[in-house]
Amino acid sequence: MIYADNAATTKPSQKVIDAMVACLSEDYGNPSSVYTLGQRAAELLQNARERVAKNLGCDPSEITFTSGGSEADNQAIRTAAFLGAQKGKKHLISTPFEHHAVLHTLNKLEREGFEVTYLDVHENGLVTAEQVAQAIRPDTALVSIMFANNEIGTIQPVGEIGAVCREKGVLFHCDSVQAIGHVPVNVYDLKIDFLALSAHKFHGPKGVGVLYTKKGIRLQNLIEGGAQERGKRAGTENVPGIVGMAVAMDDAIANLDKQATYVAPLRDKLIDGLSKIPHSILNGDRTQRLPGNVNFCFEGIEGESLLLLLDNEGICASSGSACTSGSLDPSHVLLSIGRPPEIAHGSLRLTISEDTTPEEVDTLIKAVTEAVEYLRSISPVWRNLQEGKQDFIIQ
Amino acid sequence: MIYADNAATTKPSQKVIDAMVACLSEDYGNPSSVYTLGQRAAELLQNARERVAKNLGCDPSEITFTSGGSEADNQAIRTAAFLGAQKGKKHLISTPFEHHAVLHTLNKLEREGFEVTYLDVHENGLVTAEQVAQAIRPDTALVSIMFANNEIGTIQPVGEIGAVCREKGVLFHCDSVQAIGHVPVNVYDLKIDFLALSAHKFHGPKGVGVLYTKKGIRLQNLIEGGAQERGKRAGTENVPGIVGMAVAMDDAIANLDKQATYVAPLRDKLIDGLSKIPHSILNGDRTQRLPGNVNFCFEGIEGESLLLLLDNEGICASSGSACTSGSLDPSHVLLSIGRPPEIAHGSLRLTISEDTTPEEVDTLIKAVTEAVEYLRSISPVWRNLQEGKQDFIIQ
Repeated sequence: MIYADNAATTKPSQKVIDAMVACLSEDYGNPSSVYTLGQRAAELLQNARERVAKNLGCDPSEITFTSGGSEADNQAIRTAAFLGAQKGKKHLISTPFEHHAVLHTLNKLEREGFEVTYLDVHENGLVTAEQVAQAIRPDTALVSIMFANNEIGTIQPVGEIGAVCREKGVLFHCDSVQAIGHVPVNVYDLKIDFLALSAHKFHGPKGVGVLYTKKGIRLQNLIEGGAQERGKRAGTENVPGIVGMAVAMDDAIANLDKQATYVAPLRDKLIDGLSKIPHSILNGDRTQRLPGNVNFCFEGIEGESLLLLLDNEGICASSGSACTSGSLDPSHVLLSIGRPPEIAHGSLRLTISEDTTPEEVDTLIKAVTEAVEYLRSISPVWRNLQEGKQDFIIQ
Repeated sequence: MIYADNAATTKPSQKVIDAMVACLSEDYGNPSSVYTLGQRAAELLQNARERVAKNLGCDPSEITFTSGGSEADNQAIRTAAFLGAQKGKKHLISTPFEHHAVLHTLNKLEREGFEVTYLDVHENGLVTAEQVAQAIRPDTALVSIMFANNEIGTIQPVGEIGAVCREKGVLFHCDSVQAIGHVPVNVYDLKIDFLALSAHKFHGPKGVGVLYTKKGIRLQNLIEGGAQERGKRAGTENVPGIVGMAVAMDDAIANLDKQATYVAPLRDKLIDGLSKIPHSILNGDRTQRLPGNVNFCFEGIEGESLLLLLDNEGICASSGSACTSGSLDPSHVLLSIGRPPEIAHGSLRLTISEDTTPEEVDTLIKAVTEAVEYLRSISPVWRNLQEGKQDFIIQ
């Protein structure tokens, strides 16, 4: 099997699993309990908090453990909206290519009377800090722009956006679920106010994530109840998950250079190989993208059929976000960069990792090339294109 | 070590850990992915959903997986409040002894313009269905009453309350975090509309729970985003945690008779033993209580000192809810049953399980008796009581 869907989820490392099993079997106390077993769990929690904070370049008191990236995104945006509304600021700025955890929260706020400006997106999948600066108004409560896109992997100019927001006194939330463990992220340097991450995107467990909130911002609860997480996120802490996340994050950050020196060249090889398929186009900027992300549109085919053929060959790949699979709508990300719906339907995302071998990349190129050829050979759309009854969109 | 704090959290069973490790190491796919590895995860998820539903006596489509009991409580109450408000119904009914996940959500709703009636509590820690019937008004949107109390273990007349609510057309939420796996619960028979549970209270993992929502009720999202959980709870599913929960729940339900035939008699032995301590009082009804719950107040001592002495003897115990430890306020549950603050401070909760042995119960009785004696010997309050300068509250 070749696992090429690391943007959907990753395989937890053995080190992560071992750390979780130790928590589950030995250190199972409730961190809120005063006896030794409970205090041992509290120490593990504090240790994990310190490690996560160090990896993000912030203070442990700025870390809130959540059940994942979606919860963190929701809580960040809800907090900024609440704080903004208190001052009469009900304008928000974002992009149309955000993850649905951001977009759907914004949609709900629009129904509650907030106004959202969605920045125009360049065909390469990027927005600029100048666009943000121009969109900011006196009543802007929040700028929410993701670090790296989950479908096309484009990396936004986060530092520049952060600087603009800080200068204008507007809160900046950065959904960094796809970035953490893949590119360097320092929340102070980048002037980020809220940051969301999810452990299972960097070989940690599912069901656990982090919301970083800059000191001084009064975080609002999404989940009310006990006094856990300084009263900002109720519920007994998922100690095994949190400890597993800290182990995975330490490893990912320690091996960050491998992303640039090993994964990115493999990605480029994969992009070069797939570019040879006629009437194909890379989605997202060629260089401003995640080290492991490859996303193509192939004219005249259906993405889902391609995935099924690849699955027959033991290849795990996706057409876009796993969170939106099952939906028949074309990817909102591909539409945002100007791909017409009929092209957006023929998309393929391959996301490789440091575990991917050069041989696997060769296999991927060969398998995708053959599968596209086969699907085109049975496609009436492709026949029409060939016979000139229809014009090619991708040249 | 004697672990006597099973209401705070439980030790995951080896079977649970093994099932989780299999998920983490082999079945790590994203359940939303179309390829085989993802579909395998989706099958595990569906299988867990069917097992949980069977254990609750409901349909799998009525199960929403959450990050725990607190999230489930929040979502249930928020949903009922939202649906009620749409019809102009902004009155809620609850009790003062609920878990903070319920109370704090209700407090927030009060600040948002809802009115909450908190039923008077009998000294035995129970409310009646008649009280509920009398409190229901034409504008009542929800009755939220817990199945079993997390501190004093009292079991409410849930079936009678459910019948009253159903008859009057009012939604009924039952926080059943402490009940599941300890007493039989069938949501249809008991006419429950929403039910919250948490895996780590019955030897499952932390960080995972369930919200049961009766078919036909339009659940409102607490977490917006991807289309997971029928679009009602966003975020990649915590497959290992959910599978672990299903294993733990199957085991707990299969061994339910042991709660009544083995755990309850041990509890009674513990109650009898501790009742011999002078000026002590059992909190909560003697018979209408969880099989494993023992909760006492001892006059003239501080609960926290007692816990520290017991910890020195290797005994894990608590003074009340782990979720409120660290707080200097007396237990809101003990205040609700009429214990004065100075008595409520001298409380001890011992919660045993099917893993507890009769010998451990003997040790617990001896250790608590000695510790109370010692603390009284150094307590100025106790001296005043002995010398008649102050009256005993507990006779």
